[in-house]
Amino acid sequence: MLILMKQGATPEQVEAVCARIREVGFVAHQIPGAMRTAVGITGNQGAVSPELFQHLPGVAECVPVSKPYKLVSRETKPENTVIDVRGAKIGCGALQIIAGPCSVESRDQIFACAQVVAESGAKFLRGGAFKPRTSPYVFQGLKDEGLRLLDDVKKQFDLRIVTEVMNTETLDAVAQVADVLQIGARNMQNFSLLQSVGRLRKPVMIKRGMSATIQELFMAAEYVLALGNYQVMLCERGVRTFETMTRNTFDISALLMIKHHTHLPVVADPSHGVGIAWAVPALARASVVAGADAVMIEIHPDPDRALSDGQQSLRLEEFEKLSKQLARLQDLAGNAS
Amino acid sequence: MLILMKQGATPEQVEAVCARIREVGFVAHQIPGAMRTAVGITGNQGAVSPELFQHLPGVAECVPVSKPYKLVSRETKPENTVIDVRGAKIGCGALQIIAGPCSVESRDQIFACAQVVAESGAKFLRGGAFKPRTSPYVFQGLKDEGLRLLDDVKKQFDLRIVTEVMNTETLDAVAQVADVLQIGARNMQNFSLLQSVGRLRKPVMIKRGMSATIQELFMAAEYVLALGNYQVMLCERGVRTFETMTRNTFDISALLMIKHHTHLPVVADPSHGVGIAWAVPALARASVVAGADAVMIEIHPDPDRALSDGQQSLRLEEFEKLSKQLARLQDLAGNAS
Amino acid sequence: MLILMKQGATPEQVEAVCARIREVGFVAHQIPGAMRTAVGITGNQGAVSPELFQHLPGVAECVPVSKPYKLVSRETKPENTVIDVRGAKIGCGALQIIAGPCSVESRDQIFACAQVVAESGAKFLRGGAFKPRTSPYVFQGLKDEGLRLLDDVKKQFDLRIVTEVMNTETLDAVAQVADVLQIGARNMQNFSLLQSVGRLRKPVMIKRGMSATIQELFMAAEYVLALGNYQVMLCERGVRTFETMTRNTFDISALLMIKHHTHLPVVADPSHGVGIAWAVPALARASVVAGADAVMIEIHPDPDRALSDGQQSLRLEEFEKLSKQLARLQDLAGNAS
Amino acid sequence: MLILMKQGATPEQVEAVCARIREVGFVAHQIPGAMRTAVGITGNQGAVSPELFQHLPGVAECVPVSKPYKLVSRETKPENTVIDVRGAKIGCGALQIIAGPCSVESRDQIFACAQVVAESGAKFLRGGAFKPRTSPYVFQGLKDEGLRLLDDVKKQFDLRIVTEVMNTETLDAVAQVADVLQIGARNMQNFSLLQSVGRLRKPVMIKRGMSATIQELFMAAEYVLALGNYQVMLCERGVRTFETMTRNTFDISALLMIKHHTHLPVVADPSHGVGIAWAVPALARASVVAGADAVMIEIHPDPDRALSDGQQSLRLEEFEKLSKQLARLQDLAGNAS
Repeated sequence: MLILMKQGATPEQVEAVCARIREVGFVAHQIPGAMRTAVGITGNQGAVSPELFQHLPGVAECVPVSKPYKLVSRETKPENTVIDVRGAKIGCGALQIIAGPCSVESRDQIFACAQVVAESGAKFLRGGAFKPRTSPYVFQGLKDEGLRLLDDVKKQFDLRIVTEVMNTETLDAVAQVADVLQIGARNMQNFSLLQSVGRLRKPVMIKRGMSATIQELFMAAEYVLALGNYQVMLCERGVRTFETMTRNTFDISALLMIKHHTHLPVVADPSHGVGIAWAVPALARASVVAGADAVMIEIHPDPDRALSDGQQSLRLEEFEKLSKQLARLQDLAGNAS
Repeated sequence: MLILMKQGATPEQVEAVCARIREVGFVAHQIPGAMRTAVGITGNQGAVSPELFQHLPGVAECVPVSKPYKLVSRETKPENTVIDVRGAKIGCGALQIIAGPCSVESRDQIFACAQVVAESGAKFLRGGAFKPRTSPYVFQGLKDEGLRLLDDVKKQFDLRIVTEVMNTETLDAVAQVADVLQIGARNMQNFSLLQSVGRLRKPVMIKRGMSATIQELFMAAEYVLALGNYQVMLCERGVRTFETMTRNTFDISALLMIKHHTHLPVVADPSHGVGIAWAVPALARASVVAGADAVMIEIHPDPDRALSDGQQSLRLEEFEKLSKQLARLQDLAGNAS
Repeated sequence: MLILMKQGATPEQVEAVCARIREVGFVAHQIPGAMRTAVGITGNQGAVSPELFQHLPGVAECVPVSKPYKLVSRETKPENTVIDVRGAKIGCGALQIIAGPCSVESRDQIFACAQVVAESGAKFLRGGAFKPRTSPYVFQGLKDEGLRLLDDVKKQFDLRIVTEVMNTETLDAVAQVADVLQIGARNMQNFSLLQSVGRLRKPVMIKRGMSATIQELFMAAEYVLALGNYQVMLCERGVRTFETMTRNTFDISALLMIKHHTHLPVVADPSHGVGIAWAVPALARASVVAGADAVMIEIHPDPDRALSDGQQSLRLEEFEKLSKQLARLQDLAGNAS
Repeated sequence: MLILMKQGATPEQVEAVCARIREVGFVAHQIPGAMRTAVGITGNQGAVSPELFQHLPGVAECVPVSKPYKLVSRETKPENTVIDVRGAKIGCGALQIIAGPCSVESRDQIFACAQVVAESGAKFLRGGAFKPRTSPYVFQGLKDEGLRLLDDVKKQFDLRIVTEVMNTETLDAVAQVADVLQIGARNMQNFSLLQSVGRLRKPVMIKRGMSATIQELFMAAEYVLALGNYQVMLCERGVRTFETMTRNTFDISALLMIKHHTHLPVVADPSHGVGIAWAVPALARASVVAGADAVMIEIHPDPDRALSDGQQSLRLEEFEKLSKQLARLQDLAGNAS
C-alpha cells in the first residue's frame, strides 16, 4: 500500500504515519515528491487495511498496490485448474455443455430433458430443486421431491447433476445428489454458505452476483479455496445494467478476465445472461469463441408452460441443434485462433 | 395483468391466450385496439406469472398491473406500523437515534460508545458481533465474545441492541441478545434467512441490498411478513452507482417512497450511505427533514484505529453534537412542513 | 397506451380520463376489471404522451404499448439496410473491417496504419482529427491538419475514411473528407448534431452513449432518419457498469438486439468495449460469431507512445493476424450457424 | 503519478520507465519495495497521461496522485465563488429559489408562473425555449417564440431568466435573453458547447449528466473556467440507477461533495431528481438542509396539461407554500447546524 500525504502535510504528520506503520509491524518508506510526500509499506504478507491510516492527520489517500485475492490468482498457480467430475473434465480445453430446465417440475419433464441432454453427448444436467425467488408467493421448487427425481435421473443416465444449494440446512441433502453444487447469484456474498461449501470436497460453481464486480466474484471463490476446497468454477450470467431490452447484460469480457487473472474454469450462462430464448444460441456460440470452458443452457420440453424462466428456455429440438453447432465451433475456433 | 398481442396476431392466437387463461382458472377479457389486441386477466388473487403466457404465439408482451407486494403495502394497511422495542417506539412520528460502532471490538470500546449513546438520550445501540466481509482474510467480528459484550451492555444501560444476524446457525444466539435483528445488505435476498426471522416474533431491520431496487426491498420484507412477523423496519444505506467519490450513493428519495408505499418504519443509515465521516452529519439532518423514523450513525472512540469502517465513523464528541442537532431539527422540521 | 385506474377510482374519474382522450383527438375504450378499470387509447398515429393523463385524479399508471421508434424498426422495413460506401457494402452479410488509430497523430503514423489496413484487405480506415476528451488539458486531436492527412491517405490508398464530427461548426470540413461520419458516444444525445447529419446524404455511424439504453440508441438514429438520411449504422462500444477491471462492459447482446429490432447495420467496437489490447482479438472474434456487420479495431504502430487509447490499441502485426482470423471465422461461423 | 512495476520486473525495465519519464521532460524517482518497485514522477505541471507508461514492459499499473481538475478546485481558490446575477447573488450563504415551467408553452402560462414566482420573493424564473427530447416526434419547445416570451417577462417582472442553450448556432439568441445559460444534462460532455459558453462572460449553470460522476461534472466546469468564464454553478439533478420507482436517483451527497471540493455554487433540482410532484417538496427541504445555494423547482399552472414534465411539476399554490417553508427552514437549519 502507498499512503499519499496531502499537499502541505507537516513532517510530524508524515512521521506519525510511519510510526503507525511500524506499530502494526510493517516497514515504512518515505517517498518525498515535488508537491507531496508518499509513504510506502512493506513487510506485510497480505493486504493492509487502509482503515488503519486514512484517518490520520495529513493523509490524503491510501492506494492499494497488491490485489486482495491470492489463492484464486494465476500468479499463485499459473496452470489451469481442471475439475474432474466423475470422469468429465472442466477446464482442460475441451468444451463441456451443461443443460437442463430451470426447475425440476415433474418426473416426465426432467426425464425428457435428461434423455435429450444425454443423447446430445453432453455430460451435465442442470435443474433446480430449491429455487430462490424474489416473491414469496411464486413456485419455489419441488425441494426434497426435486432432489429425489434428480437422484433417479442419475441412476438411469450418464449425467452429472448441477443443482443449487440455497442454505446450510439443506446442504447435506443437496450434496448427496449434486455432482456440482451451484451457489446462486443472490448468494454470491452469503459468506456463511460459501464457508460451508468450502469445508466440503466437492465441485462448486459460483454464479456472479447480479451487480458484483469481477473482483468480488474472485473474493467469493477465495472464501471457498481458503477452506481447502479447490474445485471451484466461476459462472458469468449477466449483470444488472440500465438496459431493459434484455434481462441482464451478458458480460462476455468477464470470461476473458476470469481466464486471465485466475486459474479456475469459467462457465458461460447465456440463458440468464440475455433472458430471451431466440438470443441464447448466438451468445452461446460467442462464448465458446471467447474461451468458455463450459456453456450452461436452460431447456424445457414445453417452455410456454414452464413454471420459471420459460421465456429464456430452448425447446429440446433447439438445444439439439445448438449442441452440434457448439461442438463444431469449438473445433473451428481452435483452428482459427 | 394485461397481455398485449403482436400486430397481426390471428384471432386463433388471441383465442389460444384466452383459453390458457381459463385453463389456469382466471377470466379473460379481449380488448380489441386499432392496431393490436390486448387481453386482460381478472379473477386472480395475487400476481399472475407472465411466464405462463409470454411464450404463446402472437403474444408481444405481458404487462403486470398489480404490484407484487401485498402485506407491506399501505393499500393493505393504511396506518403506520409502530414497532415497540422494549418501550422505545419506532414509526410513531418521534425520531429514534441508533448509534454505535460498526463492530464490537473490545469491552472498553463498546462500553465507551454505550455511555455516550445513553447520555445523549438515544435508546438504541448498534454494534456487529458477526461481520460479513468481502475478504476472508480480514477481521470478521468477535462473534460469540461480541454477543457477550453486548449482553453486558444491556445490563448496565437502558439501551436496545441492534445487531446483525448472518445465518440461521447463529440466529438463536444472536436473537437472545438482539432487540432488533439486522439483516445486512448482502443478505437482503437470502430468502432462507428472511424466512427464519419471519418465524420469530422479534423486530427485524432489513437493509437495502447494494444494488436492489426499492421494490425488491419491499419483496424482502414481504417474505418476513408472510410468515407472520410484522415487526419489520426498512433501512436505506446507499446504493452502488458509478460514483467513486462517495462509498455509495445515499438514495434519500427511498425514504419518501418507503413511507408512501408501505406502512413500515424507515431507518436512514447515512454512515454507509456516503462512507465519509465529515459528510455524515449533513446527511443525517437531511434524512430527518425527509421523514426518517430513525437515523443510524456509526461512532467510535478512536476512528483511526477502528477495525472496520473507521473512515465513516464519528468521534464520540461529534456524535454528541449531532444528536442534539437532530432532536432540535425534528421539532423545527415538524413546524416548517 | 393503456391507462390503469387506481383501485377505487370513481366512474366520474374514469369518464374524465375518457373525455381527455377524446379532447386530444383519440378514441377511448373502457376496460373494466375485477379490481380496477383500465382505459385503452386508439386512433393515434404515433406514441401518446403519458404526461397528458398520468396526473388526472384516479389514474394509477400509463403503460405504453407501442414502441417510440418507427423508421429504424424492422417492422417498418423488414429487409436489411445495406450501406454502400464507395463500393464497400456494410450490412449485406459480408464482414467489413474498420481499423486505424484512435487519433491521427502524424503523417508517418497514419500512413503506416493505412498501409497495413489496405494490405490486410480491409476497406475502411478510422482515425480522429477532432477528439472529445474529458479534460481540457490533454491532446484534442490535430484538427484541420488531421483532416488534411486523412485526405492525403484517401488519394494514395483504396480506403474509406471513418472519422468523428464533434459539432456543426466543423461538419462541412469533416464531411468533405469523411466517407462515414462518426457521432461519438458523448454526442449520442446531441440532438442538434444528429439533425445536422440528418440533413446530409452521407453515411453516419452512431456510437452508443456510455450509459444509453439500446432503445435510446434507436431514438438517436430515428432523429437522423426522420430528416431523410437513411444511411445510418449503429455501433456498440461498451457501456458503463460497476466493473473496473475493464474500461467498459462490452454488451454483445446489443449486436443481436440491433439486428433483430432494426434494419440498420451494426458495428462492433471491442477496442473501446474492453479497453485492454490483449482482450480485443477474442472479443472481435466473438462479435463476428454474434452477427456484427463490421468490426472496428484500434491499431497503432507504437501503442506505448500513442497520444490516446494506447492501452487498447493493437500493434500493426497483431492486427494483421487478427484480420485473417476474422475473415476465416466468418466463413466458418456461416457454416456452423 | 506513481508507476507500479510488476513483481519480478527487471532493473532494465525499471530504468526504461525512468528514461521515458526523463524523455517527456519530468523527473523520475525510483522507490524500491519489498515485493515490487514503484517509480514516482515529479516536475510536471498538470496531470501526466498514464498512456505514456502503462504499456511499457514490466509496468503493472499507473496510479494518478493529483486530481485532474485545477481551476474549479477549492485547493486553488479556498473561498466560495459568489455569482452576482443582476443583483441577486448565488453562493453567498442566502438561499436562492429558481422556479418556472419545464417549457415555455404560451404567454398566459409563462406570465402566470412569473407572477407567482415574483410574488413569492424568488428572483429567478426558469423556462425552456429549446427542449432536448429523446424522441424527434414530441414537442421540442417554442424556440424563438419562447425566447421572445421570456424577454417580455423580463420587462414586466424583476426576475432573472435561467434557460437552456442547446447548441452554438442559437447561443447568441439565447444569451441575449438568458441571465443564466443552462447546459443540459445530455450536453454536459458536449465540449464544443462548453467551450462556446466559456468564451462568454455570462453566468452558466451546468447540469450533471445522467450517468456522470461528480468528477466528470467538475471536468465539464473546468472546460468553461479554462476559457476565462468563472461564473459557473453546478446543478445536481439526479443520476440514472436501477431504480424505476423514481425518475432518477437524487444524489444529495453530491451537494456536499461539490461544496467541499470546489468553490462553485451548487443548485439542487429535486424536480428532475425524483420526477414525482408529491416528493419534490420534501427533497427541496432536505437539499436546503444539506447546504444547497439554490433550489430549482418546476411549476405549472395546470400540470395535467403540461407539454413536458407535468408529472413532476408543482401547482402554483403548492409552490407558494413550499417557498415559504424553504425560507423558514434555511433560517432554522442555519441555527441548528
